[in-house]
Amino acid sequence: MDNFTFCTPTRYLFGRGVENEVGRLCKNAEWKNVMIVYGGGSAVKSGLLDRVTASLDAEGISHISLGGVKPNPTDDLVYEGIDRCRRSGADALLAVGGGSVIDTAKAIACGVPYDGDFWDFFAGKAVVGPALPLGVVLTIPAAGSEGSGNSVITRLDGLLKLSLRTDTALRPKFACLNPELTFTLPPYQTASGIADMMVHIMERYFSPTEDVEVTDRLAEGLLKAIIAEAPKVMACPDDYQARANIMWSGTLAHNGICGCGRREDWASHFMEHELSAIYGVTHGAGLAVIVPAWLEYVSRIKPAKVAQFGRRVFDVNEHDDTAAATETVCCLRGFFSSIGLPVTMKALGIEAPDFNLLVSKLHENKGPQIGGYITLGKEDTEAIYRLAAE
Amino acid sequence: MDNFTFCTPTRYLFGRGVENEVGRLCKNAEWKNVMIVYGGGSAVKSGLLDRVTASLDAEGISHISLGGVKPNPTDDLVYEGIDRCRRSGADALLAVGGGSVIDTAKAIACGVPYDGDFWDFFAGKAVVGPALPLGVVLTIPAAGSEGSGNSVITRLDGLLKLSLRTDTALRPKFACLNPELTFTLPPYQTASGIADMMVHIMERYFSPTEDVEVTDRLAEGLLKAIIAEAPKVMACPDDYQARANIMWSGTLAHNGICGCGRREDWASHFMEHELSAIYGVTHGAGLAVIVPAWLEYVSRIKPAKVAQFGRRVFDVNEHDDTAAATETVCCLRGFFSSIGLPVTMKALGIEAPDFNLLVSKLHENKGPQIGGYITLGKEDTEAIYRLAAE
Repeated sequence: MDNFTFCTPTRYLFGRGVENEVGRLCKNAEWKNVMIVYGGGSAVKSGLLDRVTASLDAEGISHISLGGVKPNPTDDLVYEGIDRCRRSGADALLAVGGGSVIDTAKAIACGVPYDGDFWDFFAGKAVVGPALPLGVVLTIPAAGSEGSGNSVITRLDGLLKLSLRTDTALRPKFACLNPELTFTLPPYQTASGIADMMVHIMERYFSPTEDVEVTDRLAEGLLKAIIAEAPKVMACPDDYQARANIMWSGTLAHNGICGCGRREDWASHFMEHELSAIYGVTHGAGLAVIVPAWLEYVSRIKPAKVAQFGRRVFDVNEHDDTAAATETVCCLRGFFSSIGLPVTMKALGIEAPDFNLLVSKLHENKGPQIGGYITLGKEDTEAIYRLAAE
Repeated sequence: MDNFTFCTPTRYLFGRGVENEVGRLCKNAEWKNVMIVYGGGSAVKSGLLDRVTASLDAEGISHISLGGVKPNPTDDLVYEGIDRCRRSGADALLAVGGGSVIDTAKAIACGVPYDGDFWDFFAGKAVVGPALPLGVVLTIPAAGSEGSGNSVITRLDGLLKLSLRTDTALRPKFACLNPELTFTLPPYQTASGIADMMVHIMERYFSPTEDVEVTDRLAEGLLKAIIAEAPKVMACPDDYQARANIMWSGTLAHNGICGCGRREDWASHFMEHELSAIYGVTHGAGLAVIVPAWLEYVSRIKPAKVAQFGRRVFDVNEHDDTAAATETVCCLRGFFSSIGLPVTMKALGIEAPDFNLLVSKLHENKGPQIGGYITLGKEDTEAIYRLAAE
């Protein structure tokens, strides 16, 4: 086990009706003037935004709003948000939505007090210092941004999708998680969210660090819970208990607890970021295509942990590590398929992937070598993209 | 799954040498004058206290100290600590030790700014308001107090052992966890700590709340990790990796994550508190006696969850719930025995337990009914004490 530091100060309110606590939470935090960030029409149509603003009004908290965040959120809206926050004197942000909305709010939060271009933080040219505080009302369990200090933004100029990691500077002060708000998610979005949270766990699980049994077991436990509950939410979208289990799993998948004490991987996420930056696919669906291909590739080189994963998570019964690893890849692909996700680029709608472009952008953005469990160069990542093609 | 709130703001520094970060952590927190609380000679003899004070000195942080905390810590030292903190103007506490030391520091922390008797908080007559902040250097992985908002103190007058729960008021600001500091723990203390952390998980696992798969799976995963690593630390006390896994498990066992979304039980802890208050036994060893008896008793009434526990944690293979539950009780007793713990009061040195005294004190202190998985009255708890006798 490696040395680590771990700090997750976010206050979670979980359950029915918790979004109505927003006003009280903002007031306790002594926020006076909040900018609400949200996405498209669903938060408006469902009445959620009305409930949130009513809760703020009841506590006398001023608010402005910034709507229109799209999946794979882009820098243009971040710049607009920073500008509007500064002009209105907003002292906090309230993200009402999923990962794209939260990530946009986080980028605005660190951009407002910063003299330079907020993109400096994502490009690694500056370290986040002071930031506006942030609250969340979560509507999509997937990205785990409600419990992380991270943000992923795409720069429109050059379609550069980069992630920013902070220790606690961008962790939300509070997050309201009401599983009922997820009842109306379309099946494809529900399934993509499930893939996303599973891969957040796997990116931490597949590590070169040995002897991290406690973190392994937590990761395996979370994955087993997700695999048990996923078919229920797909079959019955308003199954409160199953939605609740999935929602809380999504938060724990990415708050860092599954990474404590070890190096992480993240090659699959980096590879998928290029897919969604270039082809505009849904992030979780892109992961369902990339990750089994990645797992297949690395299992040929280093099967032991893949075999452990399969035995403990999918109850694979093969004694031999190589055979168990092969079976594990099948189980993972089979599981993603069973919840309606594509497992090839072709099924994802990418008929003729530009492997050269994918690989060159990937290594241009992330360096010549990526990954932790196995270090991958250009030849490796091209092979994985090709395995994922069809 | 029940509605819940969850907030664990403690910053954990984990690994070799992290106790040397104490000065920097105190300085970052803007503490100027710290009272160090510790127990007996081992923190002095090992040189740990010297390293901690050197780290404080290097950052120019003043300190006084309060030693002499004993297992099952008592109110007398709390009163002394409150008095000395007030007189010296200490603005923070630094607990260097295990649960008894941390719990004493927590009681002092809430007592200092309070006009009345600190015992009011434990007796349920007052709610903790402002408290001095607290840091921890952990030396015994067991009580989990380094990550919890709780404290357990015994009042000498009447041997009343009561626990106090707070949301975040008494959660440490930081906790330094260096597994090397646990190498020299005697085997009995190591084993008792393992029992304590396992039972912290079980008290949350055995719940009347249904459909909490994610929290169940986390709990089971932690228990499996502890069961895998425990024999290693018993066989080889300076096995860093095994000690590290056990140490981090002990923190996660009690920071609340295994209780999210459900009612908890705590009958076994309440029953053990009487045992250690009256007979002065080591808390974890007392639990190793009480919990299998409790599990045996409740499994006769409600075997299903006991069977699930056995199948998932001990790989019990019985199809029938009642048979599986019976087998599970054997597995748990066998495990505690295998790490050298007593599993009867007789083996614990209590030859002729005073059942009337135990039961009457228990229900006098905790009310006529205790427990969550099964509600237990006087007849039940007497039966459990009798099952635990020999």
